[in-house]
Amino acid sequence: MNGDACKDPKLVEATDFFFTGLHLAGNTSNPVGSKVTPVFVGQLPGLNSLGISVARLDYAPWGLNPPHTHPRASEIFTVIEGTFYVGFVTSNPENRLVSKMLYKGDVFVFPQGLIHFEYNMGPYNAIAMAALSSENPGVIVMASALFGSKPPISGDVLAKAFQVDIKVVQGLQYN
Amino acid sequence: MNGDACKDPKLVEATDFFFTGLHLAGNTSNPVGSKVTPVFVGQLPGLNSLGISVARLDYAPWGLNPPHTHPRASEIFTVIEGTFYVGFVTSNPENRLVSKMLYKGDVFVFPQGLIHFEYNMGPYNAIAMAALSSENPGVIVMASALFGSKPPISGDVLAKAFQVDIKVVQGLQYN
Amino acid sequence: MNGDACKDPKLVEATDFFFTGLHLAGNTSNPVGSKVTPVFVGQLPGLNSLGISVARLDYAPWGLNPPHTHPRASEIFTVIEGTFYVGFVTSNPENRLVSKMLYKGDVFVFPQGLIHFEYNMGPYNAIAMAALSSENPGVIVMASALFGSKPPISGDVLAKAFQVDIKVVQGLQYN
Amino acid sequence: MNGDACKDPKLVEATDFFFTGLHLAGNTSNPVGSKVTPVFVGQLPGLNSLGISVARLDYAPWGLNPPHTHPRASEIFTVIEGTFYVGFVTSNPENRLVSKMLYKGDVFVFPQGLIHFEYNMGPYNAIAMAALSSENPGVIVMASALFGSKPPISGDVLAKAFQVDIKVVQGLQYN
Amino acid sequence: MNGDACKDPKLVEATDFFFTGLHLAGNTSNPVGSKVTPVFVGQLPGLNSLGISVARLDYAPWGLNPPHTHPRASEIFTVIEGTFYVGFVTSNPENRLVSKMLYKGDVFVFPQGLIHFEYNMGPYNAIAMAALSSENPGVIVMASALFGSKPPISGDVLAKAFQVDIKVVQGLQYN
Amino acid sequence: MNGDACKDPKLVEATDFFFTGLHLAGNTSNPVGSKVTPVFVGQLPGLNSLGISVARLDYAPWGLNPPHTHPRASEIFTVIEGTFYVGFVTSNPENRLVSKMLYKGDVFVFPQGLIHFEYNMGPYNAIAMAALSSENPGVIVMASALFGSKPPISGDVLAKAFQVDIKVVQGLQYN
Repeated sequence: MNGDACKDPKLVEATDFFFTGLHLAGNTSNPVGSKVTPVFVGQLPGLNSLGISVARLDYAPWGLNPPHTHPRASEIFTVIEGTFYVGFVTSNPENRLVSKMLYKGDVFVFPQGLIHFEYNMGPYNAIAMAALSSENPGVIVMASALFGSKPPISGDVLAKAFQVDIKVVQGLQYN
Repeated sequence: MNGDACKDPKLVEATDFFFTGLHLAGNTSNPVGSKVTPVFVGQLPGLNSLGISVARLDYAPWGLNPPHTHPRASEIFTVIEGTFYVGFVTSNPENRLVSKMLYKGDVFVFPQGLIHFEYNMGPYNAIAMAALSSENPGVIVMASALFGSKPPISGDVLAKAFQVDIKVVQGLQYN
Repeated sequence: MNGDACKDPKLVEATDFFFTGLHLAGNTSNPVGSKVTPVFVGQLPGLNSLGISVARLDYAPWGLNPPHTHPRASEIFTVIEGTFYVGFVTSNPENRLVSKMLYKGDVFVFPQGLIHFEYNMGPYNAIAMAALSSENPGVIVMASALFGSKPPISGDVLAKAFQVDIKVVQGLQYN
Repeated sequence: MNGDACKDPKLVEATDFFFTGLHLAGNTSNPVGSKVTPVFVGQLPGLNSLGISVARLDYAPWGLNPPHTHPRASEIFTVIEGTFYVGFVTSNPENRLVSKMLYKGDVFVFPQGLIHFEYNMGPYNAIAMAALSSENPGVIVMASALFGSKPPISGDVLAKAFQVDIKVVQGLQYN
Repeated sequence: MNGDACKDPKLVEATDFFFTGLHLAGNTSNPVGSKVTPVFVGQLPGLNSLGISVARLDYAPWGLNPPHTHPRASEIFTVIEGTFYVGFVTSNPENRLVSKMLYKGDVFVFPQGLIHFEYNMGPYNAIAMAALSSENPGVIVMASALFGSKPPISGDVLAKAFQVDIKVVQGLQYN
Repeated sequence: MNGDACKDPKLVEATDFFFTGLHLAGNTSNPVGSKVTPVFVGQLPGLNSLGISVARLDYAPWGLNPPHTHPRASEIFTVIEGTFYVGFVTSNPENRLVSKMLYKGDVFVFPQGLIHFEYNMGPYNAIAMAALSSENPGVIVMASALFGSKPPISGDVLAKAFQVDIKVVQGLQYN
């Protein structure tokens, strides 16, 4: 989780600080209808130790970037094209949903580690840009981590956590 | 989320650095059968700016500290009494469950921001201690933040995120 | 230069995390033909303590964001529209110019505190987005700080620094 | 003093985050009658870069964890069993002793770098848990560092520092 | 222990960043024959949040800056005039003394939180400059904190810690 | 730009923390009449990870340490001998020059990343000491980075930035 060793400053080249392709739409043909194109330290090595990264976000009509967290970063979300319903939930015990409709040119902040989502509220493709306060922010998708981990979390744990019958959990896990 | 101003060092007293009552079991009479007694900066003001806190964790028989994250802290979990099934899930796209059975005197680490849980695997009350790398670590309980926020997250968002019928989401939200 | 006190989390509202207007072009009718629209902590208070900010950059044809530094932030520069000649200069004694032509969808990194510039290499308006690793990155424009400070830096200092006749310095100061 | 390189997240296993044996009493058969069982990064490699560690503290009857500092960590001390007289001394020039009697379930804070001690005030074995705000907090035992270093600090230095005859210093050094 | 709020950058004046008098020798007429003139944030408010401070150190012939630590800073020690025996002791369990004779123009480093001292090895006044990696480094003088605190640390604690008769402790405490 | 791995504490020796020669004047026979003798991590490896460094500054009569920044450090400047006109310029849009005459024993602060300079206002050699809040502060000399980079910054960029004819820029670049 910490950084790699840095390259000798005398040997760095422009390509170490360069990434191309962020004008290309990601492929949103998937169940949630959204796609993240990250420009993190894995894609752009020159970000090492600089504490920042970006990503392009594409959404099919009614596409959703489902509830997720970044364990090591806050995020600034900027609408390039489209109309979004976005929100984050504050910590326990309040669990307050802070949400808003966003339009082209609007900017919203998701504080570090809080669950947040963005939902394209329209019949057109939508685009946003994200800026994140770590070169390696990490992404934890709630549905995948809770119901799609490998191996799965014990059904007993999930049934008790969500206070539902284990069959409901199994239904969630099959997705 | 940042700290308060610090007290003048010449005026601090022993009671500013003191908390009492961690020998008392928390009340685990709740649906998940567990109770956290935090000693965070809210309970112990002398922790301000020191980057550390602790908590006592009590579990009824088969009690569960359900999947949750700490947005601002890593955690060391120490078993005082009991047998636990614990685990955390790594970031997307691996979503790997790293889990282990723990016994009295065992210690386990939950890295910052990752979803983790502890499940008392036995017919007796169990006790653990947690140490956290922030005086104000925050707690995000997955079930409460996702299905119990105020106001609720739109059912459409949750149905699409978890790829289930909206009625399943409503069932989860009623709990 | 450090942050303000944070708002009570129970009182935050969606508008604390919101900024609007980044779809609007800045007015580039100025000698260098570029305009920065910042979304720093001064414009978006919810960024306080989060270590991140963004900005929109507009360029007239052949417009220049002139050589400048951010004393407290690294920057990721993303081309939305246009063709740019960009670069930064490494520290003394190398003073190596690391430069590149950038096209739509290209991303480039300017490490913290280094002098950098972006030049619109074409007869059309151009647009870029910047992400910065501080909510309060600061901007130091070389021409303004060196030759336009109030009061001015002594002409003797500047003449000796740039090894030119004091009249050359005075010519620079009158701009 | 900084961390090691981190393991590839895809290769981590549960045992990397695991330590066992903290239910076992340390051997307190030594002149001061206390024993620290550390769970620092040296004992639990998964703590690397996480900024936290713990330790078990055992005390014989009237056993003392003698005055010491942690150069890189604050500490939270929790009484598991026993009655303690604990304290820390504030910085120069106040040198104020902040002390307290602690009983089972009491918690006390020792701020980073300050001299502190814990004394078992009773005829029974006592136990405490420590949480520390660094994975590599370091321990400087005053008596050992001052009078037991290898090679020894010059007697002239110590005699002048403590304003005593060099024979008193030599008496202290022989212990 | 954290900083004060920062002044509005538009209101700062040159005097906020200024301190005078470091050319004046400190009064070394005291038992150890040394005097520290600090330029910390208390003396120079403009250092707030900048993470640095300096001090002038004066020594009478055979004067000693007695063993002490800085809980929040590493130090660079530069000899302006004189010959010094300096050293620091590494952490437990090594307790290794790392020492050296220093002459005019020599530079030595004392890592954060380690016990260190400087001894003027000659019949002349000596001078050094210290640079510290915190605007509020703190100073803990071993003799004062251990044997001169107000109120005193219990003699039983000190006798057991240093493994000497309580009368030896009382002798130390009377100094 | 981040640090190297640290040496095993058991293997460190006094020479790892030692540098000699700061009593020797630097050679100021150069166009600006000043010379910096750095004691950064490159010269003193024991500074690795400690966040501090120092430098000796020598000035010929009327010598100038020309306008420069440290991208990763704030600086404390202490006059050992001589009379100086010093200053720094605040961020855009104020670009306020904060300057002062300094005499022997005066101390001044240059906050991180701001352009600053020191000018020896007299017919004698002058000496100062600098303390910096990073072991690897970096130095960006405005004249060298702007007009002396390798390869040079395009004359068009500089002419537009400084609002002068390209021949003026070429004159500056030839120095």
